[in-house]
Amino acid sequence: MKLSEAKELREKTYQMLREANIVISPEERANIEIADFGLDDINNMGLQLVVYENNDRYCAKELVLFPRQTCPEHRHPPLSHQNIGKQETFRCRWGEVYLYLDGEPTKDPKAVIPRKYKDYFQVWKEIILKPGDQFTLPPNTKHWFQAGDNGAIVSEFSSTSSDEMDIFTDPNINRLPVYE
Amino acid sequence: MKLSEAKELREKTYQMLREANIVISPEERANIEIADFGLDDINNMGLQLVVYENNDRYCAKELVLFPRQTCPEHRHPPLSHQNIGKQETFRCRWGEVYLYLDGEPTKDPKAVIPRKYKDYFQVWKEIILKPGDQFTLPPNTKHWFQAGDNGAIVSEFSSTSSDEMDIFTDPNINRLPVYE
Repeated sequence: MKLSEAKELREKTYQMLREANIVISPEERANIEIADFGLDDINNMGLQLVVYENNDRYCAKELVLFPRQTCPEHRHPPLSHQNIGKQETFRCRWGEVYLYLDGEPTKDPKAVIPRKYKDYFQVWKEIILKPGDQFTLPPNTKHWFQAGDNGAIVSEFSSTSSDEMDIFTDPNINRLPVYE
Repeated sequence: MKLSEAKELREKTYQMLREANIVISPEERANIEIADFGLDDINNMGLQLVVYENNDRYCAKELVLFPRQTCPEHRHPPLSHQNIGKQETFRCRWGEVYLYLDGEPTKDPKAVIPRKYKDYFQVWKEIILKPGDQFTLPPNTKHWFQAGDNGAIVSEFSSTSSDEMDIFTDPNINRLPVYE
């Protein structure tokens, strides 16, 4: 991704946050993380993040998804005897987000996945989150999510985040941030 | 506090959240915690809380303060060998909040404390938080905060919360929630 494209995506992210009345600092605005997972297909597969705090005990982020943008299927594995893997709570603040996890597959799910990625989306039990709705995921469980037609803003509250340790279903994925 | 008064304060809290475009669920609305610290002086000493999540790893809340309302001075002590005390990050979302901690006392601080409580406010190093500003407090350090003239909404991200273990400077305080 070119720096000019990252800048444009950051600006788009910032405008969505503004529309939702979520204030971020100039420094946070300049450092919005663009995650394309190495797939070079950001409008389908990717998300934008504002990391408010990530310390050795807890983490808080704002996740911004453009319309129909998808965070690919992954899990947060155990990291040590003391750490059974990242646990996270998603709270929808704006828009609508479709979250998928293991269980009875939902009939006629809301999310639409481009055909070339289908093999890498294996869990299809759907949870719909609208503003004020939230869901807490147990550690080490596969999940993925897609924003609705207007995009979504989701607060993530969690234990310590170490994104580079995430395990993705799609072997083509590389979770290194493009620009952060 | 009468139940009718608690209901009125909950409604006032809900309206402030609405004004800030922060959506809570009907269940959260019905369960807004009113903390008056047993002082029966809620408009001066107290705050309102929406607890989004509190598990054995992390916690996230929305703190709502009415104009000039104060959360009294306290600290979060060590709770075990593994837990050095609650660590917390305050992120101002709306309004303005004045946070005080140990250090060189600020000259002409913004907060105003009614005379009868003065002895129980010992730390006066001021940090002003406006929307988009945040501050992370180390565990077991005295702190208190007061909202500005229009009130404040503050997101708190933290390690596990166990409010009943907090140690307040004012010996008259009892942290049991009035209604929760």
